[in-house]
This record gives sequence, structure tokens and C-alpha cells, in this order.
Amino acid sequence: MTKEVVTAAYVIIGDEILSGRTQDKNLNFLALSLGEIGISLKEVRVVIDGENEIIEAVNALRQKYDYVFTSGGLGPTHDDITTETITKIFDDKLIQNPRATELLMQYYGEVKINKARMKMSYLPSKARLIENDIMSVSGFQIENVFVFAGIPRIFQSLFRGVKNDIEGGKKIKSIEVTISLTEGIIAAEFEKMQIKYPQVTMGSYPKQGQTSLVFRSIDYNLLEKSCGEMIEVLNKLESDAIISVVKSD
Amino acid sequence: MTKEVVTAAYVIIGDEILSGRTQDKNLNFLALSLGEIGISLKEVRVVIDGENEIIEAVNALRQKYDYVFTSGGLGPTHDDITTETITKIFDDKLIQNPRATELLMQYYGEVKINKARMKMSYLPSKARLIENDIMSVSGFQIENVFVFAGIPRIFQSLFRGVKNDIEGGKKIKSIEVTISLTEGIIAAEFEKMQIKYPQVTMGSYPKQGQTSLVFRSIDYNLLEKSCGEMIEVLNKLESDAIISVVKSD
Repeated sequence: MTKEVVTAAYVIIGDEILSGRTQDKNLNFLALSLGEIGISLKEVRVVIDGENEIIEAVNALRQKYDYVFTSGGLGPTHDDITTETITKIFDDKLIQNPRATELLMQYYGEVKINKARMKMSYLPSKARLIENDIMSVSGFQIENVFVFAGIPRIFQSLFRGVKNDIEGGKKIKSIEVTISLTEGIIAAEFEKMQIKYPQVTMGSYPKQGQTSLVFRSIDYNLLEKSCGEMIEVLNKLESDAIISVVKSD
Repeated sequence: MTKEVVTAAYVIIGDEILSGRTQDKNLNFLALSLGEIGISLKEVRVVIDGENEIIEAVNALRQKYDYVFTSGGLGPTHDDITTETITKIFDDKLIQNPRATELLMQYYGEVKINKARMKMSYLPSKARLIENDIMSVSGFQIENVFVFAGIPRIFQSLFRGVKNDIEGGKKIKSIEVTISLTEGIIAAEFEKMQIKYPQVTMGSYPKQGQTSLVFRSIDYNLLEKSCGEMIEVLNKLESDAIISVVKSD
């Protein structure tokens, strides 16, 4: 039986994001990609490359949401502790994964392979290796947790690799109404509409004198109905209030 | 007495970030700006515009770190619940702040002011209003929590407004050594160096066949020393290993 509402969280394991050295480029991609398969991203945490911090975040989120994605910390150096830490979380043990070993040998060859690189062939015994078309070993799944490398093109390749296996819910559709009025003018009427249609999430976002009203729901009839009524109200407030109405697929 | 290590966390209150509609632009600014005044950003959470979610995140983080910054949810519409929620967290009550009222009246004038906009003049009784040069009322401080609007130029203006009041620690300095070798080759030697100098945080980041080794510490002598030793080791591994050495201010 398919659930209507399916949720996910994302843990970014990254000293380099927290120090400001690197700008995150995965969050927005993941949010949009999950949306396409009917999964709502509900929470994101960015934590340092520390065992306790990773354990706390992953444990809190994997119990609360249907899926958890992580990125970062899968490389061969000492600061890459994600695989070991995830293994602890699931009370599992690290074993050499035959397919991961094969991929590493193909990628590096007999001469370039060494102990540090071979570390990447060890996965939790219950994990499923996720292959990607860029870099030998950089992702696996264990229960509802997907563990990905942080480099954006690898992260994206891994996500595409599992996208079809993940069971999503009903896709949230959205309508964005951009208006020439500022938030303060429409706030009272907008709140009335939200109270009337609690199944539709309504948010308002100012942008340079204009305002975007965003309607989101898995009930497409109510989405259209509530948005249509709000447009009527706006037209009454000011005849040329509406600048654009954009519907998601 | 000044603490050597001062920490902070950041809570992004934002349905629009989690849905992928908007890309976060504040995290990197905050990370770098805090670094400049000797504060380490240690954790970030992105949560939905929900009371329970905001309470849980802010409460967890304000007890764990020296400062917490939040962004989002300060506007006049029904989905802006941050001020009320922060008031609850501190078991405080909302009162009309005289200076906030004055600023709102100046900004909107007698004709444009209305009930929704006047909502922004209510702050927790124990809060300190933080003024900024862009938008009337969009930030306040209560105990160790700084509550900011999410629009990047306002967020930045608010931060500049409080920057001099926040007591930081000793500034973390960093040295970034970019090398022509990949991570797997230097992993063993790099780990030895980390074990030898635990006071220096050493991270390694691959980038298109090259690798950046980042050394970070508040002990500037050990920073130079450990980095210098690693450079010697690298030169022994391969004579033209070093591409660049960049030191932070």
C-alpha cells in the first residue's frame, strides 16, 4: 500500500560547509528531486565530521522520517568517518564488499590501489552498494538511510541511481501567484484562506516590492479551488494585482 | 574572561528552502562572518515553518552552543510564526515594542499601516530590537538567540549591526595546501600528521584530480608547524606535489 505522504531528511556531514570554505550545492538538488517523486524534504542538518554529531543527527532523523540521505565523509582519508559511523549506528560490522572491491580494482588498477583506497571497499554487512557512473565506490543504502558522497556530480549520479527504487507518495503540486501588492496588504485575507483550506499549505515570500503567494498540496482540486478564490479576492483588492500565475507539473 | 573557543548554530526556518523553491544564501555568509570574529559555526538545521519544529531545534541548540542565529518567519503573514514561537521558548510574553512601533510608523506611514503590519511591532518583552538600514523591523535578540529575517541583504545588514556586540573567541586560522596528488596517495601520511597534532583540524577535499589539504587551528604555531611538516612529507612523496599554499588572514 502506497502512503500518501512520504517524508525525508538530509544530513550534510561537512566541516567545510560549516567553516564557509565550501558552499553547499546538494540541498536544493535533493529538495527538487525528492519533490519530483512525491517525497517531502522535512528537515536538514549540517554537522561536523564528528562521530557523536553524525550518530545523533542520523538516529534522530531516521526514526522520524521515511528516508534519510547523508552526504560527505566517504573518502580514503582520516577525516572520512561516515561509513564506520553508520556501521555503528546500525550495530553492524564492516566487511569487505566483493563488488566494491572489484570496482576499486577496476578504477585504480593493481599499481595504484593501496590500503587507504581499499578502505572504501569496506561497507556495513547489511548495506547495499549503490553504483554510479563517475567514481568507483561512493554510496550505499542501509535500511532507510542512503549514504552518498558529497561532491555534487557524484551525489547527483547516486541519486539518479536510486530514484526509481524509492517509493514516493502523492506528488505535491504547487501554484505560485506573483502579485504587485506587498505582504502586509494581503495578510488578513491570505490568513482567512489558509484557515478555510487547511489541506493546502500557503506561504508568502516578498521579493522587491512584489509578493509571491505559494499554494502547495497533494489535493489538486483543493489546490486549484483555494488558489482561484484567492485570485478573486486579490482582484477585488486591486484590479491589476496579479502579475503571474505559475503551476508546477 | 574571554573564552578561547566560541561556538554557534544556525536554524533556517523555511518551507521554501525545503521545497526547493528558494536556494539558501545565508549559511555561507554566516559561516564566514562568524569565522572573522572567532566564532565556529558547529551545526545548522533547516526546519519547516512549524511551531514544534522551531521549538525543538532552537531549544536543542541554544543549550549546546554559545549563540544561535535563526532566519525566516518574521513577516506579517500567517506563515510567519517565528516571533511568537521564540516568545514561547523563553516563556515570555509579546509586548508592543515602542521603538519597533516608531520604525513601522516611519516606514509605512499613517495610511499604509494596518493590523498585519503592526504585528511586527510585537516582540518578546525581554528582547532587544536589532535595527538595520533596509527594512523597518526584522530582527531581535533574546538571551543568546539572534532572530533575523531570511532575505539575504536584510540578514546581512542585521549581522553587521550586531557583529561588534558579540564576543568571539580566538580566531581560527587556516592554511590550504593544494596538491597534484589524489587523496588515496597521501591518506596514510596525512593521518599520521593528524595524530601527531590533534590541536590542528586537518581535512582533505578532492577537486578534479587535485586535492586540497586544509589545516585549521587557534594555535598558530602548531598550525604552521604541522603544515610545514606535511609539506616536507609531500615533497618527498613527489617533488612537484605542491600546487599552492594559501594562508588565511
